[in-house]
Amino acid sequence: MRALVFDDALHLAEVKPPVPEPHEAVVRVHRAGICGTDLAILRGYGDVRGILGHEFVGEVVEAEMAPQWLGRRVVGEINVACGRCDRCRIGLTNHCSRREVVGVRGRAGAMAEEVVVPVENLHEVPEALDDDAAVFVEPIAAAFRITEQLAIGPATRVGIWGDGRLGLLISMALATTGCELTMVGRHPSKLELVRSIATIRTSGEVVRTDFDVTIDATGRASGFEAALAHVQPRGTVVVKSTLADPLPIDPTRLVVDEVTVLGSRCGPFEPALQALAEGTVDPRPLVEMVYPLSHGLEAFAHAARPGTLKVLLDPRR
Amino acid sequence: MRALVFDDALHLAEVKPPVPEPHEAVVRVHRAGICGTDLAILRGYGDVRGILGHEFVGEVVEAEMAPQWLGRRVVGEINVACGRCDRCRIGLTNHCSRREVVGVRGRAGAMAEEVVVPVENLHEVPEALDDDAAVFVEPIAAAFRITEQLAIGPATRVGIWGDGRLGLLISMALATTGCELTMVGRHPSKLELVRSIATIRTSGEVVRTDFDVTIDATGRASGFEAALAHVQPRGTVVVKSTLADPLPIDPTRLVVDEVTVLGSRCGPFEPALQALAEGTVDPRPLVEMVYPLSHGLEAFAHAARPGTLKVLLDPRR
Repeated sequence: MRALVFDDALHLAEVKPPVPEPHEAVVRVHRAGICGTDLAILRGYGDVRGILGHEFVGEVVEAEMAPQWLGRRVVGEINVACGRCDRCRIGLTNHCSRREVVGVRGRAGAMAEEVVVPVENLHEVPEALDDDAAVFVEPIAAAFRITEQLAIGPATRVGIWGDGRLGLLISMALATTGCELTMVGRHPSKLELVRSIATIRTSGEVVRTDFDVTIDATGRASGFEAALAHVQPRGTVVVKSTLADPLPIDPTRLVVDEVTVLGSRCGPFEPALQALAEGTVDPRPLVEMVYPLSHGLEAFAHAARPGTLKVLLDPRR
Repeated sequence: MRALVFDDALHLAEVKPPVPEPHEAVVRVHRAGICGTDLAILRGYGDVRGILGHEFVGEVVEAEMAPQWLGRRVVGEINVACGRCDRCRIGLTNHCSRREVVGVRGRAGAMAEEVVVPVENLHEVPEALDDDAAVFVEPIAAAFRITEQLAIGPATRVGIWGDGRLGLLISMALATTGCELTMVGRHPSKLELVRSIATIRTSGEVVRTDFDVTIDATGRASGFEAALAHVQPRGTVVVKSTLADPLPIDPTRLVVDEVTVLGSRCGPFEPALQALAEGTVDPRPLVEMVYPLSHGLEAFAHAARPGTLKVLLDPRR
């Protein structure tokens, strides 16, 4: 089958189709999304090698131990835990020390005609939800992770820095809580996408400094510093982007104002699927282009251009 | 009266006795402690000017509106809130944006014959508790602050980096929770002080990496990095020291392992007083010397020597 493989460089390759274990399913991929992490991998992040792709939607074409899944349209959680280590035994399966991550660590990804995932990782996609929206379940789930970590409701003042893919998806997910949302970015045209759910501020405009929660989704140290500067004492700064450089934390601000800095990664698929199905979150305006897998390198070049929102791949073409 | 004043330099001065407002008390100081913050102030921290000293015990000698306090031995909370601003109105009085802090911000400190504090900040010291122990209430309260911020109990694995004043007091305070405590330091003689309550490890020895909570009390970036490296995924790194330099946080560690970094400052006096009164915390072995206030500069020089534990002042002499 065809796949986008990263070894020393990214290239389209003809590879052997994946062979599932009995408890695994083979998913024929309809859409795979290019994510900031994929672009970071190309720059050396995590020493990743192999088939990329951890955002996907597709159809189950093989499932030896769970034939009821055959023919269903699915998305899949990407962490595959060992189930036996100390962390797994206390429920920290997403942090299993031997975990594999589809398209990121030890498991082939979804930028291929087929991807293999354990059946237990699958979630069925409601019929009304089209592929171009469903492929966002993984990153939207990551946005909903914040609502598992912090109590966010209508009384919560939330400020998000960064109007890229990540920041826009987080704002859409958090808007479902009814929180008082402010979005700070550099691009009026992108901010426009969330005007109906957030107060929008472009760089240079005055932004309140009493947020209960601020979120850095800029991928830059300066964004983190802004998020830290605008949270109120005892507030929380959430960090979603895996930057390459150390985050500079002003220890006086941290200690004197008793601020919390919280890392946040993968999240729950169910609320993401539900929000997409209900239409309370609609990420499709972020899609700039759907490329056939055969034009994968071009798709990555497009995704890497500054200011690009979302680029998708269609591995059936 | 005599007082230790910091303007461009620290010096002993003859100053006018403080004049209390009606709701304030005048405390004749028996002991004042020299804290890491005082040493930092001498290096420029916070642009502080005036009489230093925020750890103290003494006797109330004047209290116009609350004569029942006259003659009582007391310690005093150091934050003086305005009571009217937005933060005060939501209960964040310790973070009042107009707050004054005894000996640190806008209010004369306790390294003087007398100090003035609002009556509502006073706590009576039990008779059995001697001055050399009671003067530690403020820093021990700061240690107990961690137990307000995090659920720490017998099942919690806590690692503390730094065997100086701060680290030792934190370990003593947290030991009262019954938690599984490890103390990592550089000085076998200091670690010996907590051998009965903690597993002790000197630098270079292997330390577990699955702490639920780690605490940096080293005052150095390297200590923070060690605390961050040894906490388990979804664990919390508590920062107690107000360093001058930015803390370098590895964003991959933060985000991928969903670690929380938590600043922690002043804490509740009652549990500190109770632990001291019950003898479950006994900080007196930390006292290296009690200097008369008249030898205050010498006392500061002593406190500033690397490896010094606690130096106290007796302003009656």
